[in-house]
Amino acid sequence: MKAEIITIGDEILIGQIIDTNSGWIAQQLQKFEVDIVQMTSIPDTEEAIFNTLKSASSRADLILITGGLGPTKDDVTKNTAAKYFGTTLTRDERVLLHVTSFFESRNLEMLEINRQQADVLANCEVLFNDYGTAPGMLVSQGNKHYIFMPGVPFEMKHLMEQRVFPLIESQYRDSVIHHETILVGGIGESYLAEEIKDIETELPLTIKLAYLPTLAFIRLRLSGKSKNKSDLVQEVKLFKSKLLHRLKNYVIADYDTTIEAFLIKQFMHQGLTLTTAESCTGGSLAASITANPGSSEIFVGGTIPYSNKLKQQLLAVSETTLNQFGAVSEQTAIEMAAGAKSMFSTDYAIATTGIAGPGGGSAEKPVGTVWVAVAGKKEIITKKFQFNNDRLINIERTRMNALVLLWKLLLKEEGQGHE
Amino acid sequence: MKAEIITIGDEILIGQIIDTNSGWIAQQLQKFEVDIVQMTSIPDTEEAIFNTLKSASSRADLILITGGLGPTKDDVTKNTAAKYFGTTLTRDERVLLHVTSFFESRNLEMLEINRQQADVLANCEVLFNDYGTAPGMLVSQGNKHYIFMPGVPFEMKHLMEQRVFPLIESQYRDSVIHHETILVGGIGESYLAEEIKDIETELPLTIKLAYLPTLAFIRLRLSGKSKNKSDLVQEVKLFKSKLLHRLKNYVIADYDTTIEAFLIKQFMHQGLTLTTAESCTGGSLAASITANPGSSEIFVGGTIPYSNKLKQQLLAVSETTLNQFGAVSEQTAIEMAAGAKSMFSTDYAIATTGIAGPGGGSAEKPVGTVWVAVAGKKEIITKKFQFNNDRLINIERTRMNALVLLWKLLLKEEGQGHE
Repeated sequence: MKAEIITIGDEILIGQIIDTNSGWIAQQLQKFEVDIVQMTSIPDTEEAIFNTLKSASSRADLILITGGLGPTKDDVTKNTAAKYFGTTLTRDERVLLHVTSFFESRNLEMLEINRQQADVLANCEVLFNDYGTAPGMLVSQGNKHYIFMPGVPFEMKHLMEQRVFPLIESQYRDSVIHHETILVGGIGESYLAEEIKDIETELPLTIKLAYLPTLAFIRLRLSGKSKNKSDLVQEVKLFKSKLLHRLKNYVIADYDTTIEAFLIKQFMHQGLTLTTAESCTGGSLAASITANPGSSEIFVGGTIPYSNKLKQQLLAVSETTLNQFGAVSEQTAIEMAAGAKSMFSTDYAIATTGIAGPGGGSAEKPVGTVWVAVAGKKEIITKKFQFNNDRLINIERTRMNALVLLWKLLLKEEGQGHE
Repeated sequence: MKAEIITIGDEILIGQIIDTNSGWIAQQLQKFEVDIVQMTSIPDTEEAIFNTLKSASSRADLILITGGLGPTKDDVTKNTAAKYFGTTLTRDERVLLHVTSFFESRNLEMLEINRQQADVLANCEVLFNDYGTAPGMLVSQGNKHYIFMPGVPFEMKHLMEQRVFPLIESQYRDSVIHHETILVGGIGESYLAEEIKDIETELPLTIKLAYLPTLAFIRLRLSGKSKNKSDLVQEVKLFKSKLLHRLKNYVIADYDTTIEAFLIKQFMHQGLTLTTAESCTGGSLAASITANPGSSEIFVGGTIPYSNKLKQQLLAVSETTLNQFGAVSEQTAIEMAAGAKSMFSTDYAIATTGIAGPGGGSAEKPVGTVWVAVAGKKEIITKKFQFNNDRLINIERTRMNALVLLWKLLLKEEGQGHE
């Protein structure tokens, strides 16, 4: 099945908003083996909408349109779509009721433009939007399906999950799709590919392997498609176990997760606590942990000792160490991690110290020099990194590699708790 | 002038990478009054590239293509472009020298596919890429200009700034463009529009006003275009001064900046220091400050006292306060800010405490309840917020509103230092 994604909205074309909807939709549709053949962002004009619908339908069977359904958009999307399909707009009573109660519950006056939110294409199936006032719409013509959704990310995601995925799955009623995901770290993509080349060659045509890399981690996703569910699941799991065995030194999780969510789950499972002492990462490491619900159960808190004074005051780093080796040194990183663990009585502590740039470098310690230390129950491990000149990338690489180090020490000290 | 942006690369279409290049290009081109009429992402195939170049050239005068120039991409972009323009590829000696020295300096073996990086369209002007091995290319046919650039963001940005903007400016040799930007906060977009409606109506056709909003701030950009430089600048500045006067209670900065960069500059200018005490924002506030170069001059560091124990230990919040009013309360926020300021001897301190969600809410304090306190030289100000159910949005709104509060107190205590 081939799909296209069309994003309607001037705010994308002037660069005011980055379109993240299309990327999310593409990622999700991967799971259903739907190929995205094009993504197009166009302005709120009749000409652009009409022509883009036409050209997209010449390439794809499934056309997903987001945006252009808000009350202030002059309804150009709905009117143009009506013209394109040779139909009219009609007011949907259920949607109108939903919109009315939305306004009533907020004690807001309802204007005619708000009522128009309930106008839908006469030839459509309404995709009811529990989370907002603009309904989604599905128009099927032969084997071409057009799906109109609001551009607000959480409303779009809701409609995709509740209404669109089931539709796509129904296209595969005669066959089954099964996915298995592995999260690996501490290995580069090309080395990983080399490591599992023979297993990849062995894969039958019904199973595909996708590499989904970030700065320090790679998710490997096996996707199988077949007519027979139990055979398929068994076969995908067989290849998964081969990959798990081959990559045993790099496997973080044998399911689809992020490193942060995985570590929180492991810490929770084993009743462990964590603190962070961030100099060069400046709070981004703690922020990435606390972005996850439930993190407060394992993360007691952290510190950002940016100045030397705070390194001493908060973590008891010794003045001698700072003078003798400098703030960016293995010795300081060790004292930061040890100090944080002891001061806040946690089981584990991560410390980062480095020169993020663009200033502050020297011949001996150029910009991009970073030390990470992780203190555990029994030992402290450290690692030096030499990154480059981009401040934000240096911070992000340090953050991710600090999580890799924490995972390694956790594995060493506690074993693979999730098996 | 009308432009289109084409992004070539399978990694975008499978959702592995979000295309941020197009948004950046669009934002920049706004300044030159170039209208983006479409953004298109397509796969690395001859058919898609050929057809998209053709349809883009029917709508736009300037076609910007990013991606598809890497050594492992089978060079389908360059070969397809050669076919499209009816030309051939030729090896550029200067680029070859650059690629060769790139490999030599890294002691890497150079393969034929690396040499092919120096192959360019025979009819192009080479846009020399100082930062990478793939050169940019400009092909002009009549008044249509095609610009091919690598997809790596910093290489693309370098080429845009060094090679493309001058080209676009040269198109306006007979007229002049001038921009003035104002950063405002503490007012919603629709209220802002109401407030300056009459000034907006007065604007001559040569001056346009753009609203560039984020979650808590709005940048207002005046763009003037005329044949006469001094008149134009004067006229844009006249309207800017009208806006500054009308919006005096909301103006943060009278130039193009971010709230974080603005605050750092103000603190630096006035020799002030800052610390953060983040419960519900979990480090993201400090991370947004330390993302800016030079922040270490004013930011001594911060704390993330997630647990009550750390609120007491790090910031001397009293047990009585925590028991009597709870961790999410005005009293706790005040003690956190006051404690942080006094413990770390800074001039200002920001404290956040709240229920980010999705768990942890109660009838009295539902998810989304947030208190922010800012301690200054003379007083402590506080504000309560009631956000919604989305953890990440709650964190981000708290972070931004905390910066607004800091700005307000700074303004009150120190005055408008930048005037």
